[in-house]
Amino acid sequence: MKVDGIHRRTIWVDADGWSVGIIDQTALPFAFRTRRLTSLEEAAEAITSMAVRGAPLIGVTAAYGMALAMREDAGDRAVDAAHDRLLATRPTAVNLRWGLARLREVLSVTPPADRVRRAYAEAAAIAEEDVEVCRAIGRQGMALIRGLHQRNPHRPVNLLTHCNAGWLATVDWGTATAPIYMAHDAGIPVHVWVDETRPRSQGAFLTAWELGHHGVPHTVVADNTGGHLMQHGMVDLAVVGTDRVTARGDVANKIGTYLKALAAHDNGVPFWVALPSSTIDWLLEDGVHGIPIETRGDEEVTEITGRTADGRIERVRIVADGSPVANYGFDVTPARLVSGFITERGLCTANHEGLAGLFPDHAERSARQRAANDA
Amino acid sequence: MKVDGIHRRTIWVDADGWSVGIIDQTALPFAFRTRRLTSLEEAAEAITSMAVRGAPLIGVTAAYGMALAMREDAGDRAVDAAHDRLLATRPTAVNLRWGLARLREVLSVTPPADRVRRAYAEAAAIAEEDVEVCRAIGRQGMALIRGLHQRNPHRPVNLLTHCNAGWLATVDWGTATAPIYMAHDAGIPVHVWVDETRPRSQGAFLTAWELGHHGVPHTVVADNTGGHLMQHGMVDLAVVGTDRVTARGDVANKIGTYLKALAAHDNGVPFWVALPSSTIDWLLEDGVHGIPIETRGDEEVTEITGRTADGRIERVRIVADGSPVANYGFDVTPARLVSGFITERGLCTANHEGLAGLFPDHAERSARQRAANDA
Repeated sequence: MKVDGIHRRTIWVDADGWSVGIIDQTALPFAFRTRRLTSLEEAAEAITSMAVRGAPLIGVTAAYGMALAMREDAGDRAVDAAHDRLLATRPTAVNLRWGLARLREVLSVTPPADRVRRAYAEAAAIAEEDVEVCRAIGRQGMALIRGLHQRNPHRPVNLLTHCNAGWLATVDWGTATAPIYMAHDAGIPVHVWVDETRPRSQGAFLTAWELGHHGVPHTVVADNTGGHLMQHGMVDLAVVGTDRVTARGDVANKIGTYLKALAAHDNGVPFWVALPSSTIDWLLEDGVHGIPIETRGDEEVTEITGRTADGRIERVRIVADGSPVANYGFDVTPARLVSGFITERGLCTANHEGLAGLFPDHAERSARQRAANDA
Repeated sequence: MKVDGIHRRTIWVDADGWSVGIIDQTALPFAFRTRRLTSLEEAAEAITSMAVRGAPLIGVTAAYGMALAMREDAGDRAVDAAHDRLLATRPTAVNLRWGLARLREVLSVTPPADRVRRAYAEAAAIAEEDVEVCRAIGRQGMALIRGLHQRNPHRPVNLLTHCNAGWLATVDWGTATAPIYMAHDAGIPVHVWVDETRPRSQGAFLTAWELGHHGVPHTVVADNTGGHLMQHGMVDLAVVGTDRVTARGDVANKIGTYLKALAAHDNGVPFWVALPSSTIDWLLEDGVHGIPIETRGDEEVTEITGRTADGRIERVRIVADGSPVANYGFDVTPARLVSGFITERGLCTANHEGLAGLFPDHAERSARQRAANDA
C-alpha cells in the first residue's frame, strides 16, 4: 500500500540482486526505516526481534532467509540447519513451518550449485502468491462490507480490528485489512476502531499508521473499549487476522482476540477472521488445548517506547517497581464464537464442513494423514 | 494499609487542624508524594485531575471540599455553589452525589457560624464510616476466598482484578482488595492477577504498587490477558470494584470490566463485585442504557508517563501521529454476568431480590419514590 504517496511492499530484493530489504517495523510509528538483511542470522534475528512480524510476512522472510543461507553454504546439511534455525524463531506461526518446508523440499531436489538461484526464485514466488492471496481475501471480504453498507447506507460501516493483520503483516494488502482497503478504495464509507493491542501496541503503532497513510478513517481505542462499543451498536463487523486456525475452526491470534470475540457474540456483532489457507493447521483440532502459547519477555509489559513532546524517542517503565509481570503472546478463540472465515477461495463457516467445503483437497489429505497416524 | 512500614490513609486533616492531606496518586508509582488541599477549588481540582480517585475516596474528598468551602464563605448560597461545583467534577460517581447531598443536608440545618466545624465533623464521620464499611466488605469477601482455599488447599487462590479498587480508592482497606488483604493477613495463600487497566494504568501503577508494598503476591498482565488465563484454569475468582450499581444489579466500572465478566462467564469463573451500599443507585434499573459514560481526554490514550532507565520521568506519545482516539472511561456489565455482590452487610446475588434482601430499607424507600415519580 502507500507510504507518503509511494507504493511499498514490506519485503523485496534490493537493487544489488541478492540482499533483502525490509521495513524495520520496530521503528514504527516514530520513524519509517528500511533495513538490509545479508545473512541467515540477520533474517532469523529480524523475525525474533519482530522487525518483521505477521504470519505471512514471517513465512516470506524465512524463505528469503533460506536463500541468504544458501549463499553462505549450499550443502545438504546447511539446508537442514538453516531450516531448523529459522523454524525456532517463532513457535506459533504455522506459515513459518509451511514456507520453510516448501523451501527445503525444493532445495532437496536441486543440485547444490543451483540452490542459491532456486531459493531466491521460490521465495519470490511465495511473496507473489501472498500478494495474490491477500488481494483475493480483500475481494471476498469486501462483499461482507458492501452488504452491511447496503443495509444501512446513510452512515459509514464501523469495523473493529485487533493487533495488526494489515499490509505490514503481509507483503501487501494485509489479511484483515484487505477488505477494508478495497471497500475504502471502492468508495464505500468505512471507519475502523483500532485496538491499541498491548503489550506491543501493534494497533496503535502499526494498524493506525498504515490506515492513516492510506487515508482510511479510523479511531484508536484502549483494548478495554471494544465491549462497550459493541454494546452500544457502534461496531457493525469485527475482523481480525490469525496466526493459526485448526481444522475445526479454533483461532489463535494476538492475546485479547478471545475477549473481543466474546463481546461480539454477546452483542450479535459478526466476528470474522481473515486468513490465507496456509494458516490452517489441518492436523490439529482443539486449539485451546493444542496450540502452544508463546510467552514473551517481561520488558514488553513493563516498558514502552514513545516520543517526547520535543521529539526524543524514549523507553520508559510503566509498571510499579518490583511487580512481577506475565506476557502471553496469543490466545485461542473457540470456533463457536467465530461467525466465519474470509479466505482466498471465499467465505465459509468456522467448522470442519465450512473449511472442507472450500479446501476439499487439504481436508482429504489431512484426514488420510490422521488415519495413518492413528493406525 | 502500609507504605514502607508506616500505616497510611489516603486522606486526613493535617496537623494545622484544617488543611486536608492527600496522597497525590498521579505521582504513583514513581514517587510517593502527599499534597495539601486548602480551598474548594483545590479539592475540586484534586478530583478532576484524579490526584484522588475511586468512588469512596472521591466522596470523602468532596465532603472535605465542602468543609474547605465553608472556611471561605459559610453563607447559604455558598453551600449550594460548593455542592454544585464539586458535583460537576465526575458525573459517573454516585458516592460523590451521596456525600455532597449529606453535607448539604447537615449544613442546611446548621447556623452559618457553626458550619465550618460541622462540615469537618461530618466529613470525618464519612471517612470513618468508609473505613468500617471496607473492613466489613473484607470480612464478608474473605469467606469466599477461604472457601476456595479449602476446596484446593495445596496451591494459592488465584484472583484477578481490574483497575484499582484498592485502599488507594478508599480511605483504607479498599473494596475489591479488602478481602484479599484480610485473607493474606490471615495466612491464606493468595496470588492476584493485576490488569494493567489502560489507558490510565491504574492496575500497573496503583494496584500493583499497593499490593507490592503490603507484600501480597501478584502479577501484572496486559488487559488482553484475562480471557486466556480463565480459559486455562489460572483464575479462581475475579473481583472488582464499581462506580455505580443499579437496583437490578448492573455494574458500571472501569472500561474493560465487561470483557472480563464475559470471559469469567464463559469459563465458569466466579465474578464478584465488591461495593459499599452507598454505591447502589436504587432509582436506576437499566445500567447499560441509563448510566452516562464519561468520555475523557485524548491524551490519556495517546500519551503515557513512565520512568527512563536513568530515572527521569518522561511523558511520551504512544499512538501513530495524526490518528484520532476515543477514551470511554467506563463500561456497564449486565447483572446476568455477575456472580454476586460483596457488601458491608454480606454477600448477595446480583438482582433485585439479592439487594433488597440485604438492604430492605433502601429498596422499600426507592420503590415508594419510583411509584411517586410514576404517579
